[in-house]
Amino acid sequence: MTARPLALTMGEPAGIGGDITLMAWQRRADIPCFFAIDDPERLRKLAQRIGIATRVQSIAAPAEAAEVYPSALPVLPIEVAPVAPGQPNPAAARAVVESIRRAVDMVVRGVAGAVVTNPINKAALYETGFDYPGHTEFLAALAGLKHEPAMMLACESLRVVPVTIHLSLRAALAALTTERIAHAGRLTIEALRRDFAIARPRLAIAGLNPHAGESGHMGTEEIDIIAPAVAALKRTGAEIIGPLPPDTMFHDRARAGYDAALCMYHDQALIPIKTIDFDGAVNVTLGLPFVRTSPDHGTAFDIAGTGRANPASLIAALRLAARMAETRASVAQRASAAV
Amino acid sequence: MTARPLALTMGEPAGIGGDITLMAWQRRADIPCFFAIDDPERLRKLAQRIGIATRVQSIAAPAEAAEVYPSALPVLPIEVAPVAPGQPNPAAARAVVESIRRAVDMVVRGVAGAVVTNPINKAALYETGFDYPGHTEFLAALAGLKHEPAMMLACESLRVVPVTIHLSLRAALAALTTERIAHAGRLTIEALRRDFAIARPRLAIAGLNPHAGESGHMGTEEIDIIAPAVAALKRTGAEIIGPLPPDTMFHDRARAGYDAALCMYHDQALIPIKTIDFDGAVNVTLGLPFVRTSPDHGTAFDIAGTGRANPASLIAALRLAARMAETRASVAQRASAAV
Repeated sequence: MTARPLALTMGEPAGIGGDITLMAWQRRADIPCFFAIDDPERLRKLAQRIGIATRVQSIAAPAEAAEVYPSALPVLPIEVAPVAPGQPNPAAARAVVESIRRAVDMVVRGVAGAVVTNPINKAALYETGFDYPGHTEFLAALAGLKHEPAMMLACESLRVVPVTIHLSLRAALAALTTERIAHAGRLTIEALRRDFAIARPRLAIAGLNPHAGESGHMGTEEIDIIAPAVAALKRTGAEIIGPLPPDTMFHDRARAGYDAALCMYHDQALIPIKTIDFDGAVNVTLGLPFVRTSPDHGTAFDIAGTGRANPASLIAALRLAARMAETRASVAQRASAAV
Repeated sequence: MTARPLALTMGEPAGIGGDITLMAWQRRADIPCFFAIDDPERLRKLAQRIGIATRVQSIAAPAEAAEVYPSALPVLPIEVAPVAPGQPNPAAARAVVESIRRAVDMVVRGVAGAVVTNPINKAALYETGFDYPGHTEFLAALAGLKHEPAMMLACESLRVVPVTIHLSLRAALAALTTERIAHAGRLTIEALRRDFAIARPRLAIAGLNPHAGESGHMGTEEIDIIAPAVAALKRTGAEIIGPLPPDTMFHDRARAGYDAALCMYHDQALIPIKTIDFDGAVNVTLGLPFVRTSPDHGTAFDIAGTGRANPASLIAALRLAARMAETRASVAQRASAAV
């Protein structure tokens, strides 16, 4: 079976999404086939503006992407209101949402292999009636998800999943429950098995407090909230390690001991991974019925249209999406063969 | 002027302090002269036990250390009750305290250049009436300090100072005040000038919340508590940067932009430095009237007396103490010459 092409959304057209999409195609020898859902004319002008020799070619369907890919960036056209780099235009918001909808539709119909999303500007979308806290929640709604998805950040040597994400530290402390930890842990274990082909995943669970609370001397959340989640997760058959002292679990020797780390709050997960690999970390959504990755950065309005954006995270996101989609397909095949 | 020798305390004799002291001396070509304040006979037996060829020689005063150092580990004798590795003996607690007292006395009198401390076991000391939360507070009391000292962790490419330290995350949030941040910031700026010879220090201040609160959308501590401290610290003449999003301030390019990072809680400081350099980070006490460093690890009872301890952090602590003491002396000399 030929791998299905990856669907790459436009993202906020005033941001760097177009820049890094054009730049990524230059590295096509290292990236499985992808196509953009965007305005071809807009991308042609942008290529000219940033002085990049990426050719852009319209396609009518994902099935045409593979043939075009070696010689041009395949683009499934959508109509986008005119937007200058760095200057978001509310009139373009509908197209941003449309690009995401179409990507999801194609991956659900099986004509695209995975969804890779360029960064959006939520504030601009709110004004059009888009009422999701973010990209991920919108994708979850489009996929008809009943439970909360989770966010994994992955680089070559570390995968982290924060249990709470975009909350103040005070609110994150209040939101931390055994059920939330166990739910994020279960999604992580499922992903490690299904998308990374790790038959017996090793999941490290971080403590919340310094030294993981030192047996209750420096905080009791490890005992009251985290330990019951550890016990519940052990019943999945995965190897569960922790709760571990957060400061000593991310150095290179420690990382070799687990496949993913479950973290209690945003920065406990993001400080180590962004310290280790600032440019190459990829955002992966766990719990969706399809594979979705995205670069781990924002719209970067200040450098949009200048050619100074770094496509490393998008390239890593495309490569990881392809690898995960392939693994998910072959794990599913093995499972159905075994029935 | 010949540099004065460094005074190295015994630490908990059932821990790895003796092991790493004997191992560090093997690397004496790379370490400025130091002497231990310990029981020479105990160290001789320990050297034999772990199979290390370190000779031990008693000295009567720090002034004799330099002559002995090339051929033997100079040891200023104190009496220590018999202790087996891994098995703390309460009868030895008095000697642990005595070793620290003598080191401080010598550095205050100017016959030692700096104090380097081996790890202690606080629990054992509490039983003897030692009533300080830790090593640092005891040193501060011995030095007659009126203000709270601060803790810096330093490796080759990063210096971090947590504003709150051994508190649960919940308690750390409650303890965070503008005055505490400004005080720790002032001690850091003073140390960068005096002990690291940085005339105009660049101090990065971490936010507390994800993305540094996104202008109040994800927590208001940046606005209410941290910003006033930033304003106060700017009046010192140092370059103050922040509050910065905590996850994007520790990768290599970001670290090149500042001389030290002021962090709001224990793990915000310790996760990045222990991820970057797990073995080589050194603990430095700021705000004392003398230079004090220590290895950034505990007593490690489980491997004491086996020869498996890693002396890297102690070696780094000795080298940094010597460098800081030399810098402090020459900065003081320049200052008095300028008067």
